[in-house]
Parts: sequence; structure tokens; C-alpha cells
Amino acid sequence: MKIAVIGTGLIGTSIALALRAHDATVWLADADPAAARLAADLGAGELLPDATNDPADIAVIAVPPAAVAATLAEAQIRNLAHSYTDVASVKQLPVAQARNQGCDLTRYVPGHPLAGREKHGPAAARADLFLGRTWALCPLPETSEAALQAVTDLVRTCGAVPVRTDPAAHDRWVALISHAPHLVAAAMAARLEEAPAEALDLAGQGLRDVTRIAAGDTALWTQILSGNAAPVAQVLAAVAADLAEAARVLAEDDDSDKAVAALLDRGQAGVARIPGKHGGAPREFAVVQVVIPDQPGELARLFDATGAAGVNIEDVRIEHSPGLPVGVAELSVRPAEAGVLLDALEAGGWPVRR
Amino acid sequence: MKIAVIGTGLIGTSIALALRAHDATVWLADADPAAARLAADLGAGELLPDATNDPADIAVIAVPPAAVAATLAEAQIRNLAHSYTDVASVKQLPVAQARNQGCDLTRYVPGHPLAGREKHGPAAARADLFLGRTWALCPLPETSEAALQAVTDLVRTCGAVPVRTDPAAHDRWVALISHAPHLVAAAMAARLEEAPAEALDLAGQGLRDVTRIAAGDTALWTQILSGNAAPVAQVLAAVAADLAEAARVLAEDDDSDKAVAALLDRGQAGVARIPGKHGGAPREFAVVQVVIPDQPGELARLFDATGAAGVNIEDVRIEHSPGLPVGVAELSVRPAEAGVLLDALEAGGWPVRR
Repeated sequence: MKIAVIGTGLIGTSIALALRAHDATVWLADADPAAARLAADLGAGELLPDATNDPADIAVIAVPPAAVAATLAEAQIRNLAHSYTDVASVKQLPVAQARNQGCDLTRYVPGHPLAGREKHGPAAARADLFLGRTWALCPLPETSEAALQAVTDLVRTCGAVPVRTDPAAHDRWVALISHAPHLVAAAMAARLEEAPAEALDLAGQGLRDVTRIAAGDTALWTQILSGNAAPVAQVLAAVAADLAEAARVLAEDDDSDKAVAALLDRGQAGVARIPGKHGGAPREFAVVQVVIPDQPGELARLFDATGAAGVNIEDVRIEHSPGLPVGVAELSVRPAEAGVLLDALEAGGWPVRR
Repeated sequence: MKIAVIGTGLIGTSIALALRAHDATVWLADADPAAARLAADLGAGELLPDATNDPADIAVIAVPPAAVAATLAEAQIRNLAHSYTDVASVKQLPVAQARNQGCDLTRYVPGHPLAGREKHGPAAARADLFLGRTWALCPLPETSEAALQAVTDLVRTCGAVPVRTDPAAHDRWVALISHAPHLVAAAMAARLEEAPAEALDLAGQGLRDVTRIAAGDTALWTQILSGNAAPVAQVLAAVAADLAEAARVLAEDDDSDKAVAALLDRGQAGVARIPGKHGGAPREFAVVQVVIPDQPGELARLFDATGAAGVNIEDVRIEHSPGLPVGVAELSVRPAEAGVLLDALEAGGWPVRR
């Protein structure tokens, strides 16, 4: 397999590393030659030669959304590869531009790996970035079966799970499950900017969960949100309307209970639809709480005990309030296994609470 | 120490159990005699005698917000205790009602332990429910120093951290850090109710974090939100206005970037103000990512390695996408300890990523 990666940021370099781990030949290029050189030094491949008479199997266009179409057109003019894909977090924008620029769409499979956060650049890349992550593929009506098969194989080689959709559905879906939630978290977190420190001292896990993703990179997210403006705006407008209505009934209405309860019920129904970590039908986990001293080795002791009990921990959260040297580990397990775990931990002297 | 607990639900019974663990004498009462009997059977104390000539040190009024004042008045008429406190999640409502009913406010310390979730009733109670949690105390201008001292001692005996404020500030603070975030999470989660299952298959940790608390109990939260309507409405209206404006500029404005970036920046500043789990100044943790097989014993092996490295894990999250038998454990550690941990895990053969 011979792959050309155009754009050696976090995503491009990680794809290159993942493919190198499967013995692919990888060519690297970037508008910033130092970035391509760094990626090559990291073992991600070799620099793209100025001219080749033997095209790559696939060229991966790993550049910002607005630059995808021009980069694709340029690569196709020089016949860089048999098939082409990109990794932008929005899909309608690059597809429309590629169509306008007269790109060969039969060879183009628009893509989006749902992976990678916080850090940027080739130095942050990892071969395992896509392991177990979903990777959206949005073949166009023109896209050939051969191109789709080749890019699907590349996705699987990276360890990701291909999910087929179309550009419009993709953009609506990520607006709903990623882009809009980011701005909702930001809007809630923005209320904390002027809050008294004493109020924030009372904050528990709930506030931390709701606002966590608002810590993301502003420049990156501004680009993503503007590149998917219409679908994001639609979700945000609906959320804003529900919140404004809740604010209105709470402020003005003596009988606000019914409206508030209806919104809470809808939220409960919505969150229940998010699949569990193994996919498939949403699943309720039982939560076992264990008090642990906040010091090295205690989690090891705890997980020794859970491992010895043969119970698989589906998720772990640690809660800790300011001022005390103990925390609470919340272990999510399959309901059928909770009893075994509780018995085992209690027998081992752990203070547990289900 | 002799304590009367009026209302043997989750909170009241947990307080009783915590105090019993410190050899206090505890009297139990509930509008539902079976609930008080169950609490007594759990070892939370003995049933409140019909008449006593020796008042308790403190009576803890652990009933719903709207019932606090009447219960307090009744208890004071029979001279049940020297001092009184309550545990309602809102404070202005019961205080205003107690004042109107002519309660003796010199002996009353309004309180609110920030603990307890999901489950209800005496059977769900635990002596360690308040361990390390904050517990707001809102003494009134009339409240005596002796009453405040007695209730503060009770809070500390339960293992909680007393935080002094006043009812109006308390209600504004919990509106901001607990009540409004709950409705924001619900409003975002409500958008998922009609979403295609394929969209939800793409969901990552971000969406799960933002919407997690929306799974809470509707009846309980309706009561809490209606009992703190004005402060909650104020926060929600501000969040709704920011989101509506973001939706507007994204939908209509060719130059939406500046407005979106400004909101993202404000969100980033807000989330940075939430204290770390040890309190004090907000602290950034370094995150070390480790790929782990999704089977029993692997977390134990991992935490053996972190414990052996002498590194304290501040938080753990496990990410897992549908379809693959591996997950990613994200370990939050003090930045100064990340290098040690990375070296130790890599030496142990763990696939790590910082």
C-alpha cells in the first residue's frame, strides 16, 4: 500500500504513523516544509517526491476544511493517487468547492475521523489515535466503488470503525452530537466568568461534566463552527428557545412545574438514547461507589480487588471535594456484576456504596 | 451528643448514620412511620419518643423545601431541641416561611449539604454520604453563635466541609453551579430525542459529559428548580440569550467568526475558574492516555503500574467507541508527574499517549 498524506498536522501524521505500523509506504507533504520534515523524522514516512510516474493508492488530504478542494484539485492535476479522501470535520463545504473546481469526484471519498483533540501538530501525533473511533465516510453519487473500497480499507487499517453517510447528513449529525454541544457548554461556562469564587467552591461533578469541553481551543472550534454554520445554528436555536421558555415560566409563571418537568423528561429521554460504550442499545450501568484515600497506590489496590473479583469496570469517575484527603471512586459495571463486586469489595474492607 | 432527625429520607437517614458512627444518640421521625421504622432498623437510631423532658442538642429538619417551616415551627413548639437546622437545596423559601410563621430564628441555622443523588429513601442512606462534600450553612442575622457552632460541629462530624453564606447568595450560587446546568444539560439532551440512531453512534465523550446529569430524576429536579425559580431563570435567560445570538450570527452573518470566538473564549475563561478537586486555585492536570483491552483485570494491571511509579491519579476517564474490544484510559495527573508516569508505563509496555 502506498499512501500520500497532504497536511502533516495531528490527524495527517497520525494516519501516516498508523499506516506505517502496517508497513505501508507513506509520502508526506505540508504547506509548511518543517512540519512535513518533523513528521518524517517521527517515522511517519518520507517526503513526497517532486515528481513520480507511479501514483499512490490513496492521497489523504488532511488540511483545514476551506483548503480541501484546492488541495484536492492540485493533487489530481498531478495525478498523485488513484483515490482521494479528506479528514475535515465538516463535509458539505469541501464537497461543494471540489464540485465547483471540477475535481474528479469519481475518485474522491469525503471522510471525517471522529478523533483527536486538545493538541495539534505532527509532534502530538500517535499511531493509535483512531483505535476504536468512528470514521465517517460520505461517498458522493459520483464516487466509484473502487475508491470507496480503498478508503474503507485505509480506515480499517487505522483501527477505526467506518460509518457511511452523506455530506448533508454528516454535517447535521456532527452539529447535533459535537458542534452544538460545544457551544452549549461554552455558554454555560461563560456564566462562571463573573461568578464569586465561593460559588465555584460548591461546584460538584455535574458542573464539571457539563462544561468540560468548553476548555477546547478557540481558534479550532471557531473554524469548525463557522464551517457548519447552518446545521449548528438550527440546533442552537432550538436549545436556546427551550431554555428561554424555561427561564420565562420560572420567572413569570406560578405554575411552572409542568413545563419544567416536560423539558426534564425530554432531556432524560434524549440522554437515554446515547449508546453505551459497546454500541448497540443504550445500557444502564450500575454504579458502585468506593471511598478511597487520595494517595498513590490506592487506585491500584482498588482495581486489584475488582480484577480479582473478575468484574469488568465499564467506566470510572473520581469525585473529590475540596478540603478532605479522601475521594469517592464511582465504578460503572454491568448490573448483573454489581452484586459480585459489592461483595468482593466489602469482604476486602473497602467502604462501598451502590 | 443527642440529635433528632425529622424526615428519614436519604439525607436525614445518612446524617443519622454518620452521627451514630460517632456514638451520638439519634431520635428518628418521619411523616411516614414505616420510613422512620426502616431507618431505625438500619441502625440510624431510635424512634422519637412522644414526649421528652430533655431536649436534643440539635433537630435536623430533613423534609422537602416547602415543608421545612411548618416542621420547624411544630418542633419548636414542643421544644424538641436547643438548635435547629434543615437540609433543603434552596434556602430563601424555607427561611421566609419560618420568619412568617414566627419561628425562633435565634436557634435556626439553615443548611444544605451538597451530596446525595439518584437514589432516595432510608434504604439508600450511607454513613459516608457527606465525606468530603461541601455543606452550606446560612446563619440569619438572628441566629445565635451557640446554634451556629453546634450545627457546624454536626457538619464536621458528618465528615463534610462547612461553607458559610447567606440564603440569597446560596440560592444564587446553586442556581449557577447546579440548578441551571441541570436544565442546560436537559435542553441539549432533549435535541437527541428525535435524532437518527446513526447520528448518536458518532457520539463521543463530549456529548456524554454535557448531557450526563440530564438523566436525573424529573420529580426531584422539578421541585428544586421551582423552589429556586428566580435565580435559575436569570442564569438560564443569559445562557439562552448567548446561544440565540450564536445561532443568529451563524445563520445570518457572513462574519460570524468574531462573535463565536468571543463566546468560546468566555466559556474557556469560565471553565478555568472551577477549582480542581483539591480546592484552591484552579489547576491544570496533564492527561496521559493509555490503550487498554476491555476486559477484567486490565485496569488493575494499569493501576498497579501507576502505583508502582508513585504517581497519584487525580482523575480517570475511560473512552470507548462502539465496535472495538479496546478502550482508552485517560489518567489526569499533576503536570510535574506526567513524565514519570509516561516513562513508567512505556517501560511496562503500555501504549501511552500524552
